Amino acid sequence: MAEVRCIDLNADVGERFDNWRPGDDEAILREVTTAHIACGFHSGDPTVMLETVRLAARLGVAIGAHPSYPDRDGFGRRAMDVAPERIYADVLFQISALDGLARAEGARVTSVKPHGALYNRMAEDEECAAAVARATRDCSSDLWLVVRAGSRAFDVATSMGLRVAAEAFCDRAYARDGALAPRAERDAVVGDPALVAARAVRLARDGEIDTIDGTTLRLAASTLCLHGDTPGAATVARTVRSALQAEGFGLGSFSSV
Amino acid sequence: MAEVRCIDLNADVGERFDNWRPGDDEAILREVTTAHIACGFHSGDPTVMLETVRLAARLGVAIGAHPSYPDRDGFGRRAMDVAPERIYADVLFQISALDGLARAEGARVTSVKPHGALYNRMAEDEECAAAVARATRDCSSDLWLVVRAGSRAFDVATSMGLRVAAEAFCDRAYARDGALAPRAERDAVVGDPALVAARAVRLARDGEIDTIDGTTLRLAASTLCLHGDTPGAATVARTVRSALQAEGFGLGSFSSV
Amino acid sequence: MAEVRCIDLNADVGERFDNWRPGDDEAILREVTTAHIACGFHSGDPTVMLETVRLAARLGVAIGAHPSYPDRDGFGRRAMDVAPERIYADVLFQISALDGLARAEGARVTSVKPHGALYNRMAEDEECAAAVARATRDCSSDLWLVVRAGSRAFDVATSMGLRVAAEAFCDRAYARDGALAPRAERDAVVGDPALVAARAVRLARDGEIDTIDGTTLRLAASTLCLHGDTPGAATVARTVRSALQAEGFGLGSFSSV
Amino acid sequence: MAEVRCIDLNADVGERFDNWRPGDDEAILREVTTAHIACGFHSGDPTVMLETVRLAARLGVAIGAHPSYPDRDGFGRRAMDVAPERIYADVLFQISALDGLARAEGARVTSVKPHGALYNRMAEDEECAAAVARATRDCSSDLWLVVRAGSRAFDVATSMGLRVAAEAFCDRAYARDGALAPRAERDAVVGDPALVAARAVRLARDGEIDTIDGTTLRLAASTLCLHGDTPGAATVARTVRSALQAEGFGLGSFSSV
Repeated sequence: MAEVRCIDLNADVGERFDNWRPGDDEAILREVTTAHIACGFHSGDPTVMLETVRLAARLGVAIGAHPSYPDRDGFGRRAMDVAPERIYADVLFQISALDGLARAEGARVTSVKPHGALYNRMAEDEECAAAVARATRDCSSDLWLVVRAGSRAFDVATSMGLRVAAEAFCDRAYARDGALAPRAERDAVVGDPALVAARAVRLARDGEIDTIDGTTLRLAASTLCLHGDTPGAATVARTVRSALQAEGFGLGSFSSV
Repeated sequence: MAEVRCIDLNADVGERFDNWRPGDDEAILREVTTAHIACGFHSGDPTVMLETVRLAARLGVAIGAHPSYPDRDGFGRRAMDVAPERIYADVLFQISALDGLARAEGARVTSVKPHGALYNRMAEDEECAAAVARATRDCSSDLWLVVRAGSRAFDVATSMGLRVAAEAFCDRAYARDGALAPRAERDAVVGDPALVAARAVRLARDGEIDTIDGTTLRLAASTLCLHGDTPGAATVARTVRSALQAEGFGLGSFSSV
Repeated sequence: MAEVRCIDLNADVGERFDNWRPGDDEAILREVTTAHIACGFHSGDPTVMLETVRLAARLGVAIGAHPSYPDRDGFGRRAMDVAPERIYADVLFQISALDGLARAEGARVTSVKPHGALYNRMAEDEECAAAVARATRDCSSDLWLVVRAGSRAFDVATSMGLRVAAEAFCDRAYARDGALAPRAERDAVVGDPALVAARAVRLARDGEIDTIDGTTLRLAASTLCLHGDTPGAATVARTVRSALQAEGFGLGSFSSV
Repeated sequence: MAEVRCIDLNADVGERFDNWRPGDDEAILREVTTAHIACGFHSGDPTVMLETVRLAARLGVAIGAHPSYPDRDGFGRRAMDVAPERIYADVLFQISALDGLARAEGARVTSVKPHGALYNRMAEDEECAAAVARATRDCSSDLWLVVRAGSRAFDVATSMGLRVAAEAFCDRAYARDGALAPRAERDAVVGDPALVAARAVRLARDGEIDTIDGTTLRLAASTLCLHGDTPGAATVARTVRSALQAEGFGLGSFSSV
C-alpha cells in the first residue's frame, strides 16, 4: 500500500478589531488545515478571537495561536527590542488567553506561530527563539511551534524538545539566504495563482524553491502559509490546494498526527 | 472543640504598567490571604502579571484574576455599555491569560473578582453578572467568583452553580442600599486604621456595618477587601489583621477550603 | 439671478489602523465635500491620519476632525461614562493633533464631528454637548461643530456662539423622536442607492424624512452623511450627488462659506 | 556689568495614566525651569496632560512636549524599528495635541524633547533625527528641539535651521563615547544629592563630566535633566538648584530667551 504524503496549509486569521465584519476569514479557512489566530497584540480582540475559534472549529480547521509584539499601530511588523523575559511573558499570555477561549468551545490550541517581526527575529536570534519556545512549552508540552523552515529557530526549538513544524511560503519571494524578501521590495509577493501553486507543489514534492535572484533553495517544510488578506486570496488557496491534491498529497494539520 | 471562624483578606494588585517599580505590592501582600491581579485591561501587562504571580506564590497568597472593561485611560472605573457577549469574551480572555502565567509557575488562579465599573455593574445588572459568571465557569468549574455581598450578582452566580465569595469593604463607606459611596463623595474612603479595623471586626463577627447616613447594614461576607494603593495601606492592613486575630478569627483564603 | 441652494455631503474616513491599505477612502472622498478623519481614539493612527489629510487636500475636500471616546476595541460605538472634563481634554487633544498634521500640509481642520457613542450622547446630554463645544471653540473659535439635526446639541452649541452644522442621515432609518434607529435593528441601514438619493433630495429640498414607523420628521440639515464603509458606498454616494445636482443643488462644504 | 550665565533645569513629567494622583509632579516642577510633558504614547493621557500643563503654567515653568514611540507596555524605553515617515507623523501628532491643550490654557509648547528609545536613536541615527526635527519645525518654526549634547542629532537639527538645546544628565552615568550607561548597569543612576549637584556645577561651569570608566568627557549643555520619578527626586533637584545658584548661575528656560 502506497504511503500518503501529507502537507498542511495554514493561514493567519482574526487580524481585525471589533466584530463588524464577521465572515471575512471564512473563505480562506475553507481551504486550509491550520488557522493561526491573532491574540490582540498586533490585531484582534477577545470577541474576534472567539468568533474565529468558532469558525475554525465549525470548519474542522486546527487552531493555532498567532502571538506578536505589542504593536497595534504597526501591525506587529516592526522590530522591537523586547527583552527575552518579556517576550516569554507576552507570548505565554497570548497563547493562554486564546486557549481559554478555545477550551470554552470544546476545542484547544494545538500550535503556536509567532507573527511578523517576532517571527522574523526568531529566525536569527537564538535567545528570542528560546524565549518563545519556552513560553510555548510552559503553556503545554504538547503544543507545536511553527517556525521558518531552515532557520535557527528550528534548531533551537527542536533541541529544547518541542514539536516543531517548519513553514515555507509559496506566495512570498525568498532571498538567497532563506529569509523572506521584505514586503516593500518589488516582486516580494507572488500573486499569480498558477505560479503560487507550482511553487507549492515543488516545495512539497522536492523541498525546493527558487530565490528572488534565480538560485534554488532547499527547504524541508511541513506547512505552507497562505495569506488571506489579499484580494483573490481564496482563489489562490483553492488553486494551491487542488494542485497539491492532484500531485497525490493529502491535506491535514501537522498538529493532528 | 471550638470551631475556628475564618475570614479572607484580599487586595487588588499588579495595577501598574511596565516593570519599573518591582516590590510595590509586597507590603500589602504580606498582610492578605488572596491577591486579585490586574490582567492588562485596566492596568497591568504580562510581565507585571508574571512578577505578581511569583510574589503571591512566594508569600503563599491565593491567586485571583482581576478582569476589567478595556479602559486603561480610565483605570476601568468608567461605566461602559459593553454587550454581555463581549463581556463574556473579555473576561474569559483575561482569566485564561493569568491562569496560563500562574500554571507556568506551578500555581493556578483560584478566584475571579471583576474590577471597578464592571464589578459595580454586576451588582445591579443580572445579564452582566451572568456573563461574568459564565466566563468564570467556562474557564474552570472550580473557580470562585467574588462579588459584592448582598448584591444581585451573588444570587445570579449562586443559582448558576458557581462557588461564590461575598465581599465587603471595611475601608469604604456604604450607602443605605448596600452600594459603595462613590469615591468622589466626602468620607467615601475610610483612612483611620483603628476605625477600619473596628469595622472589619464588626463585619466579620456580627455581619454588620454602619452606612454613610448612620443606619446599620447587614452583610454576610467571606472576604474583606483592603486597598493597597493608598499611603499607609500596609499599616491599615496590619491593624485589621491583628484586630481580627485578637478577636479569634483565623485568616485564610475562601478558595483554599 | 436665482440663488443657488447649497448642501454639503460628508463622510467619515481614515477609520483603519496601520497603513497597509492606502486608497481605501479615495472612492468615497471623490463624491463628498467634507471629510471627517478619525483621530486615533476609535480608529486611525498618525500615519493614516496624515495620508488621509493629504488625500482630502488633493481632492479639494474640507477637512474635519472625527474625535471619539477612547475605545478601539468597540470602535467608539459603546456608551462610556466619561466625565465632561475628560471629554473636553480628549476632544481637544484629538482636534489639535489632526490640525497639526493638516497645517504641516498647508491645510487646516475646519470642522469637528464627534463619532459614534459620543455623537449620540451629545444629542441628549447637554453637559456632554457643552464639553465638546467648549473643546472645539478652545481649539479655534472659527471651527464648525457638526451635530445631529434637531438634537439638544444643536441648541447648546449655538447658544455658546459656535458655528454649528446640522447633520442628517439619508442612509439610516430615523425613529419618531429624531434619533437614529440602532444599527442592530432591521432596516436600520438603507442600502438601495435610488432610495437613499430620494431621501437626500427630500431632506435637502423639503427638510423632511420618513421615520421607520411611517411618520414624517422635519429636519433642517446643512450636511448629509454618507457612509463609506459598506460595499457599494461609492455608488450610493454618486447617485445621491447626481440626484441633488439634478434638483439644482450646489455641492460645497458648510465650512467654506 | 558682569554677564549672568544661565542654565536650564528640565524634568520629564505627566508620565502616568488616569488622574488619580494629582500633585505627583508638583515637587519636581517647583525646582525646574522647563517641563517635558508625556503625550500619551509611552505614558500620559489628555486629562493628565491638561492637569500638568496647568500645573506648569501656574508655577511659571516652560512647557515642552515629550513625544515617544507608541509603546505603553515598555514605557517607550524599547528600540522599535519605526520608519522615519511614521516617526514624523507620530511626533507631529504628539506635539500638536499637547500644544492644543496648552493654548487652551493661554500657554504654548516651546520645546520638544523625545523620550527614551526614540531620544537615544536620534543620537546615532541621522534619518531618525531628521524626521523628529522636521516634525518639530513643521509644528512651529520657533520650537526648540532638545537633544543629547554631543550627539549626531545636535548637528542634524542645527543644520536644518532649528533652535537646538543640548542636554546633559547629571544624575546618569556616561559611557566614554558620550552615550548614557544603560539603566540596567550598576551605578548607571547617580543618587547622592551632593554628588549630582557637584556634577551639575562642573557641567555648567566647565563643560565637563566624568565617565563611568573615569575619563573626562567634554559636553556643552544648555539644559540639565533632573529625573522626577525616583524617591528623593525633589531633594536632589533642590540641591542641584542651590549649588548652581551658589556658583552664580541664573536659572531659566533656554526657550524663554
